Amino acid sequence: MARLNDNLKIDGERLWDSLMEMAQIGPGVAGGNNRQTLTDEDGEARDLFQSWCRQAGLVVNTDRMGTMFARREGEDPTALPVYVGSHLDTQPTGGKYDGVLGVLGGLEIIRSLNDLGIRTRHPIVVTNWTNEEGTRFAPAMLASGVFAGIHDEEWAYNREDAEGKRFGDELKRIGWQGSEITGDRKMHAFFELHIEQGPILEAQGHEIGVVTHGQGLSWTQVTITGKDSHTGSTPMNMRRNAGLGMARILNLVDEIAWDFAPDAVGAAGHIDVYPNSRNVIPGRAVFTIDFRSPDKPTIVAMEDRLKSEGEAICQDMNLDVEFEKIGGFDPVEFDAGCVMAVRNAAARLGYSHQDIISGAGHDACWINRVAPTAMVMCPCVDGLSHNEAEDISPEWATAGANVLFHAVVETAEIIP
Amino acid sequence: MARLNDNLKIDGERLWDSLMEMAQIGPGVAGGNNRQTLTDEDGEARDLFQSWCRQAGLVVNTDRMGTMFARREGEDPTALPVYVGSHLDTQPTGGKYDGVLGVLGGLEIIRSLNDLGIRTRHPIVVTNWTNEEGTRFAPAMLASGVFAGIHDEEWAYNREDAEGKRFGDELKRIGWQGSEITGDRKMHAFFELHIEQGPILEAQGHEIGVVTHGQGLSWTQVTITGKDSHTGSTPMNMRRNAGLGMARILNLVDEIAWDFAPDAVGAAGHIDVYPNSRNVIPGRAVFTIDFRSPDKPTIVAMEDRLKSEGEAICQDMNLDVEFEKIGGFDPVEFDAGCVMAVRNAAARLGYSHQDIISGAGHDACWINRVAPTAMVMCPCVDGLSHNEAEDISPEWATAGANVLFHAVVETAEIIP
Repeated sequence: MARLNDNLKIDGERLWDSLMEMAQIGPGVAGGNNRQTLTDEDGEARDLFQSWCRQAGLVVNTDRMGTMFARREGEDPTALPVYVGSHLDTQPTGGKYDGVLGVLGGLEIIRSLNDLGIRTRHPIVVTNWTNEEGTRFAPAMLASGVFAGIHDEEWAYNREDAEGKRFGDELKRIGWQGSEITGDRKMHAFFELHIEQGPILEAQGHEIGVVTHGQGLSWTQVTITGKDSHTGSTPMNMRRNAGLGMARILNLVDEIAWDFAPDAVGAAGHIDVYPNSRNVIPGRAVFTIDFRSPDKPTIVAMEDRLKSEGEAICQDMNLDVEFEKIGGFDPVEFDAGCVMAVRNAAARLGYSHQDIISGAGHDACWINRVAPTAMVMCPCVDGLSHNEAEDISPEWATAGANVLFHAVVETAEIIP
Repeated sequence: MARLNDNLKIDGERLWDSLMEMAQIGPGVAGGNNRQTLTDEDGEARDLFQSWCRQAGLVVNTDRMGTMFARREGEDPTALPVYVGSHLDTQPTGGKYDGVLGVLGGLEIIRSLNDLGIRTRHPIVVTNWTNEEGTRFAPAMLASGVFAGIHDEEWAYNREDAEGKRFGDELKRIGWQGSEITGDRKMHAFFELHIEQGPILEAQGHEIGVVTHGQGLSWTQVTITGKDSHTGSTPMNMRRNAGLGMARILNLVDEIAWDFAPDAVGAAGHIDVYPNSRNVIPGRAVFTIDFRSPDKPTIVAMEDRLKSEGEAICQDMNLDVEFEKIGGFDPVEFDAGCVMAVRNAAARLGYSHQDIISGAGHDACWINRVAPTAMVMCPCVDGLSHNEAEDISPEWATAGANVLFHAVVETAEIIP
């Protein structure tokens, strides 16, 4: 019978074909995808995925958050299943691989096991988590968050999109609200394959990232209040320029992040000044600082410096400033055993690999709270993601799915 | 007969009543005015002003740009008229005094001359310039610019508002396109009374600003291009953060302005980053630097430093940067004789006064190109303008109009 050796491979061409077929649903305007959660297109993607699962002999169940669980039975009826998966929803101008690779990589494992006639002791369940992206219904990783007990299900149902539609109503509308109680599953382990969404693996020339940690996140919204005044008729010494205060705090954020680098990052992506008119000195600036680190005390230290030094900057400039924490999550340390299974798989298969920290949030970050979890990453071109131009090579997809395959099958215990 | 002494005063109460009556037309949402150029409300304001002019015995003519000229005859048929005025149009959320005080102050001079039975050698023409504000149809000071030969009339007619309506069409629609050729008037002098729109006079406790210069303006639009990337998964040393580049250039602009202060100011009022999402490092930042000085070489030196040091900043950060000059005008030195007439008037009337530089642009800045010109300024509360909360005291309005009265009448030569 089959043994877990370097001959055991998934079918990379079949995986790629499925990725391309899925990408036909909810095409974007620039070669990528717009398949936001709980849209008709999300429903179509679910139908296709379900039909593929059934063709592969899997039994599909859906929980009350719409998350899909496609099960291949194991030899031991008392053994907890090994879960594998990610998400099929995309950003409004998203790519073809973010999330999708992890779901269809999981399906490819099943197809390959079937082809090779391999049985495992533990069942294997391929999972499609609802609303990972969070762009239509904030926050991101919503269904995995409810599954892991982070969010209340009623609260999740009441999330509204920009048109005021409720998550719960839209889930019913597309016909994908299941009856299974959310979170009512015990997992032996969970594995998620994902594109890196960053530039490190490509820059290092590594095919595989062994994800040891997920960075913690802190979002602080900063509001600086000065005074709107005419750019021409206000002397320099009578200005209360909120835009200039913002500029100095943006520099401070960069200094703080570098002081803690390479184990921390920091920047502001969201910046608004008011009234945003060429001849009016901004009286108000609102912007959000994004600090991340795999180390929680580092995040707290960065937040503290932002507040104390930011307040000093604004005081010197006769500006008022408020800091409001508007989001965040703690750093994640993935399960040592699962991480080892991923690292072993990469080594066994001869792929160049490195340990890596996930900079972005993923469903795996929440599931790690309730089950032993790890992630596999593959490179993406130029680090680009959340962009229709997001790209990976078929070879990278194959390598990532092969490592996922070995890690899952080792954990699910091959029947000799 | 009347002599030009400190007993000669306008009727402050009548001026204030007219200001309040005019403010009934095009009320704002917060106590100010929304009487944008060439709207129905602008037409109503013109009708009211014209009826007041006729009641005061003036003959009203209108040029092809819609500018209104209300003439009181002089004793010498060969003498060029002394012009006085400003504008009746307002910002969308404008105040009751910006522009209006200068037009109704001019009318009040005529009313007072009539009351006192005073004749002048030169005719006096009260003027309402079309579209000083420029918010509906850019640029500001449009009709005075055409009058002074800065802009071409056809080009002005083709300016479009946000709904794509043409200036020329809207001018016809409200019925205020005259037949007189624009700019076909010779002026003995032009005087404009205006609120300061800045905080200097109030802070110094002075009732009158004798405006010696108008600052020159330079608008440079800066576009920084880096790379959109994930705030979490992009290491600090692989970032091309256009928002951070912008922050450093905003600091540079402040440094440059202080180096040339008090004869220069600088800031950015308009700031946009893209894609402006909390978890994406900005790949692009577009913002406009506003430099002003009464000295042209100073403006050129500031522009040069912005470019050379801004380029160095961006080069160090692996960012591309472009500088585009998108607007500006040269500094204005008002006519020494007219300025002296204003200063003498303030002294004669016993008002506390100081020389001041106009930070904002005004119709007087263009008219100074074709006629001896000066301006009178009165304080405004807290320097606030282009804001519905814009405020002045009746005493300030009276003082400003009295100084305007004396300056105009001295220049128009009282008949003893």
